[in-house]
Amino acid sequence: MPHETPMRPFWKEGGCVVNGWLAVPSIISAEVMARAGWDALTVDLQHGTADYGSMLALLATIGQAPVSPMVRVPWNDPTHIMRALDAGAQGVICPMIETADDAARFVRSCLYPPQGARSFGPIRARVAHGDGYGAAANAHVQPIAMIETREAVENLDAILEVEGLAALYIGPSDLASAHGFPPAMDRTEPELLEIIARIRTSAHAKGIRACLHCASPTHAAGGARDGFDLVTIGSDARFIEAGAKAALAAFHG
Amino acid sequence: MPHETPMRPFWKEGGCVVNGWLAVPSIISAEVMARAGWDALTVDLQHGTADYGSMLALLATIGQAPVSPMVRVPWNDPTHIMRALDAGAQGVICPMIETADDAARFVRSCLYPPQGARSFGPIRARVAHGDGYGAAANAHVQPIAMIETREAVENLDAILEVEGLAALYIGPSDLASAHGFPPAMDRTEPELLEIIARIRTSAHAKGIRACLHCASPTHAAGGARDGFDLVTIGSDARFIEAGAKAALAAFHG
Amino acid sequence: MPHETPMRPFWKEGGCVVNGWLAVPSIISAEVMARAGWDALTVDLQHGTADYGSMLALLATIGQAPVSPMVRVPWNDPTHIMRALDAGAQGVICPMIETADDAARFVRSCLYPPQGARSFGPIRARVAHGDGYGAAANAHVQPIAMIETREAVENLDAILEVEGLAALYIGPSDLASAHGFPPAMDRTEPELLEIIARIRTSAHAKGIRACLHCASPTHAAGGARDGFDLVTIGSDARFIEAGAKAALAAFHG
Amino acid sequence: MPHETPMRPFWKEGGCVVNGWLAVPSIISAEVMARAGWDALTVDLQHGTADYGSMLALLATIGQAPVSPMVRVPWNDPTHIMRALDAGAQGVICPMIETADDAARFVRSCLYPPQGARSFGPIRARVAHGDGYGAAANAHVQPIAMIETREAVENLDAILEVEGLAALYIGPSDLASAHGFPPAMDRTEPELLEIIARIRTSAHAKGIRACLHCASPTHAAGGARDGFDLVTIGSDARFIEAGAKAALAAFHG
Amino acid sequence: MPHETPMRPFWKEGGCVVNGWLAVPSIISAEVMARAGWDALTVDLQHGTADYGSMLALLATIGQAPVSPMVRVPWNDPTHIMRALDAGAQGVICPMIETADDAARFVRSCLYPPQGARSFGPIRARVAHGDGYGAAANAHVQPIAMIETREAVENLDAILEVEGLAALYIGPSDLASAHGFPPAMDRTEPELLEIIARIRTSAHAKGIRACLHCASPTHAAGGARDGFDLVTIGSDARFIEAGAKAALAAFHG
Amino acid sequence: MPHETPMRPFWKEGGCVVNGWLAVPSIISAEVMARAGWDALTVDLQHGTADYGSMLALLATIGQAPVSPMVRVPWNDPTHIMRALDAGAQGVICPMIETADDAARFVRSCLYPPQGARSFGPIRARVAHGDGYGAAANAHVQPIAMIETREAVENLDAILEVEGLAALYIGPSDLASAHGFPPAMDRTEPELLEIIARIRTSAHAKGIRACLHCASPTHAAGGARDGFDLVTIGSDARFIEAGAKAALAAFHG
Repeated sequence: MPHETPMRPFWKEGGCVVNGWLAVPSIISAEVMARAGWDALTVDLQHGTADYGSMLALLATIGQAPVSPMVRVPWNDPTHIMRALDAGAQGVICPMIETADDAARFVRSCLYPPQGARSFGPIRARVAHGDGYGAAANAHVQPIAMIETREAVENLDAILEVEGLAALYIGPSDLASAHGFPPAMDRTEPELLEIIARIRTSAHAKGIRACLHCASPTHAAGGARDGFDLVTIGSDARFIEAGAKAALAAFHG
Repeated sequence: MPHETPMRPFWKEGGCVVNGWLAVPSIISAEVMARAGWDALTVDLQHGTADYGSMLALLATIGQAPVSPMVRVPWNDPTHIMRALDAGAQGVICPMIETADDAARFVRSCLYPPQGARSFGPIRARVAHGDGYGAAANAHVQPIAMIETREAVENLDAILEVEGLAALYIGPSDLASAHGFPPAMDRTEPELLEIIARIRTSAHAKGIRACLHCASPTHAAGGARDGFDLVTIGSDARFIEAGAKAALAAFHG
Repeated sequence: MPHETPMRPFWKEGGCVVNGWLAVPSIISAEVMARAGWDALTVDLQHGTADYGSMLALLATIGQAPVSPMVRVPWNDPTHIMRALDAGAQGVICPMIETADDAARFVRSCLYPPQGARSFGPIRARVAHGDGYGAAANAHVQPIAMIETREAVENLDAILEVEGLAALYIGPSDLASAHGFPPAMDRTEPELLEIIARIRTSAHAKGIRACLHCASPTHAAGGARDGFDLVTIGSDARFIEAGAKAALAAFHG
Repeated sequence: MPHETPMRPFWKEGGCVVNGWLAVPSIISAEVMARAGWDALTVDLQHGTADYGSMLALLATIGQAPVSPMVRVPWNDPTHIMRALDAGAQGVICPMIETADDAARFVRSCLYPPQGARSFGPIRARVAHGDGYGAAANAHVQPIAMIETREAVENLDAILEVEGLAALYIGPSDLASAHGFPPAMDRTEPELLEIIARIRTSAHAKGIRACLHCASPTHAAGGARDGFDLVTIGSDARFIEAGAKAALAAFHG
Repeated sequence: MPHETPMRPFWKEGGCVVNGWLAVPSIISAEVMARAGWDALTVDLQHGTADYGSMLALLATIGQAPVSPMVRVPWNDPTHIMRALDAGAQGVICPMIETADDAARFVRSCLYPPQGARSFGPIRARVAHGDGYGAAANAHVQPIAMIETREAVENLDAILEVEGLAALYIGPSDLASAHGFPPAMDRTEPELLEIIARIRTSAHAKGIRACLHCASPTHAAGGARDGFDLVTIGSDARFIEAGAKAALAAFHG
Repeated sequence: MPHETPMRPFWKEGGCVVNGWLAVPSIISAEVMARAGWDALTVDLQHGTADYGSMLALLATIGQAPVSPMVRVPWNDPTHIMRALDAGAQGVICPMIETADDAARFVRSCLYPPQGARSFGPIRARVAHGDGYGAAANAHVQPIAMIETREAVENLDAILEVEGLAALYIGPSDLASAHGFPPAMDRTEPELLEIIARIRTSAHAKGIRACLHCASPTHAAGGARDGFDLVTIGSDARFIEAGAKAALAAFHG
């Protein structure tokens, strides 16, 4: 009896998806993360160190656990989006969406006709998610647009009108840089908090989800209380760095 | 809620395990095989083309489907056996077991003390199979010895006395070579059929399982009817070769 | 005495090139395919699972056999086209050519000045095809444009006017989606058959070759009889899937 | 006490940077090159055979020696530029810059806001170059534009007005092709020498550095005497080819 | 001026070497560890997931920081020992040394003649550590034998007589298993503490160093206070697991 | 019409095989070497940096050129020998053969029954060399034993009595170390020259070939004149090192 892992509901009704972040392209680190209890895991092709080949292996590895498979593509480029989806990603996070046209092109790359222009050939997605993948894909794939520049904030209303967009994803580092602050996550500046809140409430007003990239679980828990639909906490590489430094400090201290 | 894939019963009570064979070390070929309906899949480190790194990725990939993960190690060498088990293999097929001492060393490498001398450090096995892995391993790991030389056939009774051996596995190519026949599977020569039957019945008489490597499903079905507990059919590389040649013949024919 | 594999005539005069498809990025699967009797083999960077590094290894591997080396790039992007050609591809299949401008940019990426704007640096191509590669490349490289959308069909005449285009390649899945049919190959719908025939005859009328992507050898043989200059049959991944399922059905049946 | 390799001054005051070229994506070849005495080393993603994953390993490998890490990206595409910089490259050579707009987009991809639009996430760069990387990056990163077409030469003055450009880099092969000469390095034709000299002097007049790609050390030494700020000599792959052929000729001669 | 990283004194006079553990075979995780402040780092080929190729890349990566490069080989097998040393390891940890003969064979594999029988060909070691590597190797290479079975403890005195052994390394998990306790690190059972202390004091009495594998920094600090010359704390994979679980607990808690 | 590269005569009647050496595990370096004019190429698994996976790719890559494929295994271990042969090697160089028993075990691993005990499963060898591989293998495979220790020289006569040995291969570095000289190739010391000559003449007296590892083409030409049947010159890694240093010296000089 063949076995498949059909794509499931991605969002938590009445709750917040807790997303882990894979910057390390190894089987063992990915499986450790996949078994740790995250709701979703994102392979980061933008600022992480996976490439196509390791992304494919990581998506297969995390396919062993009940986590929603996501990929952050490095750019709004149909090649990356298509290959991430064909490799089995359910959520696609796209950086630097600044205009409604950017968003529309992004969605178009994510969805099959007639809603979009994704080319057909789901090499791993069909194998992993079953023969019904082609018919079900448009209902399950989640195009998630990063809002992280001044222009994006200015164009927020227009972006939110784009048919097929599933969620906005706030990248606090670039958003801060764009507004003259040093890049970092877990912001506390009122000006940035106001913008972040505005992105969330504007999205929700249009029935679009909102996601927040966080460094600490405390900040993420605050985001969840504020109503974000997905929060990301740290990354595998950050856990190594923090763990090693804490161990050495404890040893020497 | 973390998720695990604890090791399950390996053998089919009253039936025959159908085992697929991975000679191609790629994610997509492994996942295609994993979703095809096999009961078990074997990564072949002896005559296949995987090495340690690809074996690890293949075991994670097939971990997505309900197939028992197996590895054929290249030699009765504790390094290979230990690393295959630490990577999550449940069954280990070891070639060229010729004496009771060979078999005892093989079993010793597969089991933790006090039954054996396997070193502790199940890097992926614990992550994949859960925190109870260490305590459960000896009950679930299956040491499977290949019988494929004259000396092995002569020493059959002694080999079958070795505590902890789960099964014998017949490699018809080498067994045939050893007896003066050209190497191939799916034998029909009475002399070889007699030896093969003797290995199976001797094993069963001692409560040890018996396995048969086959090329064709027809031969494998015959093996199952004869009472083999596990049969292997073909390999991914052979399916490509046969498929390509059949397609070209059909096109040109 | 050094040895080289200069690029040879690509098309079969009065016959049809039979093309195999590599979706599995492994040495052994590629060599099995290379020895199976295909006239050409295509490394698929769009919907297959090779990336740049494995493409390079696959092109070297299939360079052992007398098959024309081809690459399907994932997009009409000069990076992919340039790197595929520098790696030794003779034919380049480019998806989603929709306008004459698309086709002209594609050809421009394939050819050296003055016919095009390909940058010089044929790292493996010169080594594999000999020191004369630079001078001979424009005469031997085959830019092959995929026609797979409504817009492409509408712009067919303009596309066929583009200087330097070698062939059109029909992708039946996307072509069907674009016309409201479910994606699949080996179409039988009169509306699609008419479009497919029109693409072929329009191309031939302009002295451009026509190619058809097929699933089955039967359909491919029909394509050859219809006058297609190249037909593709199945893929390595499909041969594994079909072979495994057939073996299991035969075993259980 | 943690250790870092902060980015250092890139140019040699009053001297010429001697740059080696990595076309072979292996650890041992990169380390051999890194220990050989070059001032800088360039991983070539355009016409070399590294991809993202091997580039990351090569940059870490050459990080052991006091060489400035550089990457030639395959195209003026923000994905490649961002990932090369995040992986720790200090110099980025971008091919086919033809207009001021090309150059401005290239610089914009290299620099963080407010000077540019590089997205923040220096995954290896921060680890390799220290926690001060983010603040120091714009002062140390070197955007280097290749001038290698007729259009580029015509637009030279406009290109040199682009704020933030560090240097021009002359690619003699493509520059020659563009002007009707066969592609090769180490040119001697007066027409090309005049263009090459003009690019250098125009750059210097604007306070921009000039770099020359060379095959032989003799030609490179001439370039240095002429005032070029950086010269490249040969490549690892060329050293193998020349070394093997010389050894065989010496043996047989 | 070429640059090298000659092998330096390995041990801390009057202090304790703090050793990190690499189970994840990726460039980024290795570099994060290398910059974290460890005195030494060990690539684990026994229970980690690196193989030869990734070991080579990891040794080059950590060569950027002032950490002593170590490898734990999977078995007392000259192939693994030779290849780890040729790849640049200074310390070699060998598991399952049970007799003086085991220890003598291990040392023999580590040292060049006349002290040992290591074959000459330090492919990366000479490049990384300089042309003087061959002459200096025997003075700097550290053969470190794991003591982790009953037999090893019984043979302790004989093992300590072996000329050239640099240190004993206690593997608490296997040592515990061998004595009937469940495998784990950071033991508190008096019987095991006594054995561990005896190994340390016996080694010191013979001028041999003693090393302890630990899970927590607290236990490692205790080991250092007790006089161990090297302590290992955790591993990169464990830091990910602990970090992810702590973050999720903090989020949900 | 399928294509194969059947194994050909390995030795040059009346001449000397000139062998190149692959220490760099990359496709491009291997193909550059394969096209350079060597008679044979050796993938070095002992002191080079290839592992099983890269060896497989290198053997496929050099299979494009008319060079005899060879592998130096790291040890006299049936796993390495079997996997090198199954991957398509025709010649196998085995280090550290010291006794007739070593040599007999080595030959036994190389040959199929009844001459030896090689296990059947030539995964790439059959694909590369044709369906007749199994029957032809014993006639074409060349077991080549390295003579590089005092014990080996003392046991020379006994070693040369071993049935099936094709050649002796002199490793001058280890041979020199064993006799109290610093390790290096291209020896001039009378004591070593006498030993080297004795190995060659003793082999020839028994109808066994003799091979010499050299650094320079001059020394190799001398070896050929002396009657060696195969000489190795340098390596790809050495060509890079020499080429880079010569280029930098020429630039600065």
